[in-house]
Amino acid sequence: MTVDRPSFVTHLECSLTGERYEADQLHGLSRAGRPLLVRYDLASIRAFLPKAMLEARETDLWRWRELLPVRRTADIVSLGEIETPLIPLTKSGGPNVLVKDEGRLPTGSFKARGLVMAVAMAKALGVTRIAMPTNGNAGAALAAYATRCGIETIVFCPDDTPEINVREIALQGARVYRVNGLIDDCGAIVAKGAAQGLWFDFSTLKEPYRIEGKKTMGLELAAQFNWRLPQNIFYPTGGGTGLIGMWKAFDELEALGWIGAERPRMFAVQAAGCAPIVRAYEAGLDHAERWEDAATVAAGIRVPKAVGDFLILRAVRASGGKAMAVGDPAILKAVDDAAKQDGLLLCPEGGATLAAYREALRLGWIDEEESSVLFNCATGLKYPMPAAYKVVDRFAEIDLAAL
Amino acid sequence: MTVDRPSFVTHLECSLTGERYEADQLHGLSRAGRPLLVRYDLASIRAFLPKAMLEARETDLWRWRELLPVRRTADIVSLGEIETPLIPLTKSGGPNVLVKDEGRLPTGSFKARGLVMAVAMAKALGVTRIAMPTNGNAGAALAAYATRCGIETIVFCPDDTPEINVREIALQGARVYRVNGLIDDCGAIVAKGAAQGLWFDFSTLKEPYRIEGKKTMGLELAAQFNWRLPQNIFYPTGGGTGLIGMWKAFDELEALGWIGAERPRMFAVQAAGCAPIVRAYEAGLDHAERWEDAATVAAGIRVPKAVGDFLILRAVRASGGKAMAVGDPAILKAVDDAAKQDGLLLCPEGGATLAAYREALRLGWIDEEESSVLFNCATGLKYPMPAAYKVVDRFAEIDLAAL
Repeated sequence: MTVDRPSFVTHLECSLTGERYEADQLHGLSRAGRPLLVRYDLASIRAFLPKAMLEARETDLWRWRELLPVRRTADIVSLGEIETPLIPLTKSGGPNVLVKDEGRLPTGSFKARGLVMAVAMAKALGVTRIAMPTNGNAGAALAAYATRCGIETIVFCPDDTPEINVREIALQGARVYRVNGLIDDCGAIVAKGAAQGLWFDFSTLKEPYRIEGKKTMGLELAAQFNWRLPQNIFYPTGGGTGLIGMWKAFDELEALGWIGAERPRMFAVQAAGCAPIVRAYEAGLDHAERWEDAATVAAGIRVPKAVGDFLILRAVRASGGKAMAVGDPAILKAVDDAAKQDGLLLCPEGGATLAAYREALRLGWIDEEESSVLFNCATGLKYPMPAAYKVVDRFAEIDLAAL
Repeated sequence: MTVDRPSFVTHLECSLTGERYEADQLHGLSRAGRPLLVRYDLASIRAFLPKAMLEARETDLWRWRELLPVRRTADIVSLGEIETPLIPLTKSGGPNVLVKDEGRLPTGSFKARGLVMAVAMAKALGVTRIAMPTNGNAGAALAAYATRCGIETIVFCPDDTPEINVREIALQGARVYRVNGLIDDCGAIVAKGAAQGLWFDFSTLKEPYRIEGKKTMGLELAAQFNWRLPQNIFYPTGGGTGLIGMWKAFDELEALGWIGAERPRMFAVQAAGCAPIVRAYEAGLDHAERWEDAATVAAGIRVPKAVGDFLILRAVRASGGKAMAVGDPAILKAVDDAAKQDGLLLCPEGGATLAAYREALRLGWIDEEESSVLFNCATGLKYPMPAAYKVVDRFAEIDLAAL
């Protein structure tokens, strides 16, 4: 999956001020305290890489190498980043609903996309120790990739993070700490240690490369939709890296001449118990206040404060989409319906996108004739499922017809 | 993933006697009580399908349609059967060790390959109710695909089957029963109900099509190795469908002229606590006695008696490979090493193949210069992992440097 190909990265720039930063150096946030965006020489890529050449390649994430920041193939630490499939959700969704099943990626979640890129760049730039706050899946992806290339990792997670996530992270070689707080409380610990020079801070959007990995969701969608895009994208939004990344990807693809000016409506889906972006969207604000007492069954999107809030809001508004919140009962019902009707096990955050799709349909914001993509961001196997079985005694006389 | 393409199936035949059976009819075991094998008009496929045409297709399982039994595309019930990646296991394995990560398939295991095919054929042939004994993963795959196309399913599993498997099966719409016994005790219940006409029996190799789905592991390997094959294959062997299927696939590919006469050495890997095939192999027998008091941490290969025993033994011997057993401590150490050294989480059965690889190397049966493929048959996330974390109080004065 890691054929040698050039990168066309030119520099980085502050997402708020546009201030320019050098490529191939270690960066955190910009001087304005905002995420840095990676920029490419798109004109040269356009000349170098005909679309047909891209299409002839294997479909893994590294197919997009010219549009990614890693320069040396030797820095790539792959665990098999396949193109994730699109699965029709006909009965519980609708005739034109497709689930992009990100649970098929290494460590079972879309976090692998961001972390494989960030770890490769950390390796390239000589980082030897990384710390990160996580609700579970990002920490697992970090641990796997960092362990694979010999980088030490320390992970902090909220104390109610599911046991399976914590164990997975530890088994893959990271040191894990449960913290009596939420992800931003964990983030504060990581920031403090980073300020002391103890480790490099890998929090969402605090280093510039996770977004480049996540943007491959948008690149893949374009290729899978034959260089048109779906009309609606429902994206479970915590830190929002993926939504920001896809929006960036679409602009880059248009600059290459591979897609036109049309864009999907981007629906940023949050849980009713933690919906800072929705609140800011509805109030017409550019930035989102911290959400106090955040609580939802969809722990992956339990992010009270997102450093990229303005980028999420900007993309949602520019796309004609919406930020919308769904309640836990609707999320759980969506997970149950998708499994029982379509045989597809979603994670709660994926269930949230199905709940949001249904709500958007009900409110007339979208039409079921339109193509809609729901992001199932992780395998449903990592999450609690209801117990439902009976017992049979093999030594007893059983009336099998009554089972 | 389900482009319309013809199937070239001609008939079925008894794997023991060669007796011929009609295609496109419902079959269980042959009259001799043995598995039926599906046969194709390979000469016509050779004329119809140039290798370059195959190579130009998307890489999913349905790429191989001419070599598969499903005739009508409408009968396919896909959940996104991607080609699984090959992942180098350099540190815990060796310089030429690749893991084929079957945990990326729908429902997180290689059982999806067999069940997607068997369910499609059941649908094509009008089956409305299916029962199956399972150690967990096969039941999950059956439930998902059968639910997706409206077939009713009843699943029986040993009472110590992991809770996650049982819940997954139930959530995906099957009725699940825990039985005080092993998988063949469950199989006896299924057989009894089938004899009463209550359901169709989907036990391993008792219907002819799971093997056709499983053989795609061999087809994919050939394509991924550029139409040569790896020198050694380590396969976790319970019912052995996949090993039998791959061996059949290689013969079909040779008949198409796509590979030569060379074959990998096939290593059938069992657990020391349930090794009927190994015992028969070492005794020079063609059939294996039931293994009493079977017990191993690798529940997926805890199969005391395999109906395809003679087919497994025949393939292993013809290939110059071996049937070999590894103990639970070696299995658990292999899982830990792969995660801690290479960042790859294996299931216990996948761990067994790494333990077997190491043992074969130690005994001089293979060389580390040779290419070896280990089958990780399911995602490691479905299995118990050791607890390993510490707690940090965010309100306390923490010495971060000491973490």
